[in-house]
Parts: sequence; structure tokens; C-alpha cells
Amino acid sequence: MKLVLHEYSPSGNCYKVRLTAAHLGVALERREYDILKGETRTSEFLAHTNANGRIPVLQVGDRFIPESNAACFWLADGSRLIPKDRFERADMLRWMFWEQYSHEPNIATLRFWLAFVGTDNLADAQRAAIGVKRAAGEDALALMEDHLRGRDWFAGNAFSLADIALYAYTHVAGEGGFELSAFPALTAWLGRVAGEPGHVPM
Amino acid sequence: MKLVLHEYSPSGNCYKVRLTAAHLGVALERREYDILKGETRTSEFLAHTNANGRIPVLQVGDRFIPESNAACFWLADGSRLIPKDRFERADMLRWMFWEQYSHEPNIATLRFWLAFVGTDNLADAQRAAIGVKRAAGEDALALMEDHLRGRDWFAGNAFSLADIALYAYTHVAGEGGFELSAFPALTAWLGRVAGEPGHVPM
Repeated sequence: MKLVLHEYSPSGNCYKVRLTAAHLGVALERREYDILKGETRTSEFLAHTNANGRIPVLQVGDRFIPESNAACFWLADGSRLIPKDRFERADMLRWMFWEQYSHEPNIATLRFWLAFVGTDNLADAQRAAIGVKRAAGEDALALMEDHLRGRDWFAGNAFSLADIALYAYTHVAGEGGFELSAFPALTAWLGRVAGEPGHVPM
Repeated sequence: MKLVLHEYSPSGNCYKVRLTAAHLGVALERREYDILKGETRTSEFLAHTNANGRIPVLQVGDRFIPESNAACFWLADGSRLIPKDRFERADMLRWMFWEQYSHEPNIATLRFWLAFVGTDNLADAQRAAIGVKRAAGEDALALMEDHLRGRDWFAGNAFSLADIALYAYTHVAGEGGFELSAFPALTAWLGRVAGEPGHVPM
């Protein structure tokens, strides 16, 4: 089955899919789109790849899976990256939903605005939202720090998709102006994730 | 195993968990919190129930599952509400992640601001965000409409957690000022969901 990752490679959401595939030893063909040039909003992309106009999209044969965490789940289904225990499996998904709702819209968005779009190019509404996103991003990092005190991994007692999903934008949070040195348990966990056999850098 | 739903009952995210349990014939004890009075931000709630200060939380014995879609997954794991096919299972999750990223923050938030908090009580930053959320919510409904043309359900060919997750805030989108009559396939799908055996109203 041909697997193609439609991606913008600096995106943490796309990196999640590559990191999951690397841990599983699965080869992905990669197709690059420049989101700053609107290459995922063309009528071709919207009609065939993702009507939502976003990357990543994992192509499985002639079918498509948008949403980074769903693509990771497809890749890892049945593997050691998803806990066998029912509670731990739901707990892994809890962290993945939390990542998309409370972490990514703050930490990834500020990174994108500050390091990719540039402060001078932001719309007024975006510039006005920086303070709220900064505070919410700090809260998200603090919640991770609390959770990791006395724990090695987010769900169950093993490295899982929850760690991959949260690592992607956390390890580059500095590019969005977040200061990770204030979070020692989080920093130690970043080191553990990067030290796992099979790890690949962004 | 005692199951307790910690909830604010008018919340669509909490309704998802009740609707999933109803379809499965599972009894939930219910504990109500008034989020308008900050009852999920007490030190007691943050320390024991959810450090993120949000509902719903599904209590399973003495353990807790925050995030509505993760709680639904725990309840439905192994049931007919989650497709057996690997692609369809990931596709179901794709819609559930999309719901939390592209639907809920727009459609549910506008409903909460307009129908619960009240326009006069919004902060300036919230009032400034209404237009952006209105447009993004309309886009989300239009994407659902497109997907449902020629399809009965969101993932696979059967009613699943994807339909439950998307029904919760879509069927009350009118309370946020969205006009559903412009979306005939979506409206027909709402009727199919409400007509499923085991359905319970919000």
C-alpha cells in the first residue's frame, strides 16, 4: 500500500506523522506544499486531498486521512505506540485531544505567527490575540509540567502517541517565545522522547 | 465499576458522553457543576478531577478521563459505535479531531457567548473575535454539508462516535446564530441521528 504524506515539513503536525512512521519503521513518500503561498487552498487540493485545506494529510492508497493525530493513529493501530489497556488507550487519546484543543492553537500558532509569518505581517485581530495565546500556552506547559512530576510518559507507563503528539510543538516552543527552562520535568521528558530508539529530528 | 459524569448539562461536550452512554445502555451517575460560577476552577476540582478545569470528565472508578471525545471512546471501545475497519476507525477519529479543532471553538463558543454569557458581558477581545468565529463556523457547516451529500454518516457507512461528536453542537448551532436551513444534507443527517434507536435529547 503506497503511503504519501502531504505536508509542509516545518509544521509540527506533519512532524508527528513522520516521527510515528519512523518509530514503526514505515516508509512514507513525502509531497511538500508551501502553506505560506496557499498551496493547500488550491481547488485541486480542496477537491482531492483535503476539503479543509490543511496539512498534514496521510494518503493510504487512494484514500486520505486529514488531521495529524488521526493519521498517527492509523499508522500506529495495533502497535506498541497505542496502549493495549482500555483506560490507558482512552487516556492517550485524552492527551491527543487536549493537545489539539489547548496546546496547539496557542503554542503552535504563536510559533507560526512569530517565526514564520512575522509580527509585522499579522492582522490586527491576530496581534490582539497574542496575549491571550501567550497566557494559555503558559498554562498548557504548566499543566504538562505538573503531570510529568513523578511520571516518565503521558499515558500508561510507556512511550505512546500521546508523547509524540505533545513533543512535536513543545520541543520548538522557544520559537514562539516560550521559555522551557522554567519547566524541569517537561525538559527532562523532552530528552527522554529524543532519546527513544527510532527517534528522528524535525 | 462506578461511572460518574462530571458535567455542566447544557454543554454539548457533556451531552456527547450522555448520548454515547444511552446508545450503549450504560448507566452514568451525574454530578452537575455551574461553569458560569467557576465551579470547575476550584482547588478541589483542579486537584482531583481535572487539572485543566474543564468538563466533561468521566470518572471510571477512582480514575478520571477529561476531554469529551476521549470519554466517548472509552465508553464505546469494542462496541458498534467504533468501526472495526482500520481506515474507518482512523477516519472516525479524523472527524472527532476536526470537531474539536475546527467546529467546537467556533460554533460551540459562539453559542456559549451569545446564549449563555450574553453579548453585553463579553470581554472586548471576545467581541472582536465574533466575526472570525462566525466565518469559521459557517465554513465548518459547509464542509459537513459537502461531505454528507450522497452519504448517510460521517465515517464508514454506519452511525459512529463521529456522528455523536458532530451532532452535539451542530443541532443547537441556531443558538449561536447559525442558520441551518441553508444546509439540506446536514439537516437530513441531524434527523437521522435523532431517529437512531437509543437516541436521547440534550
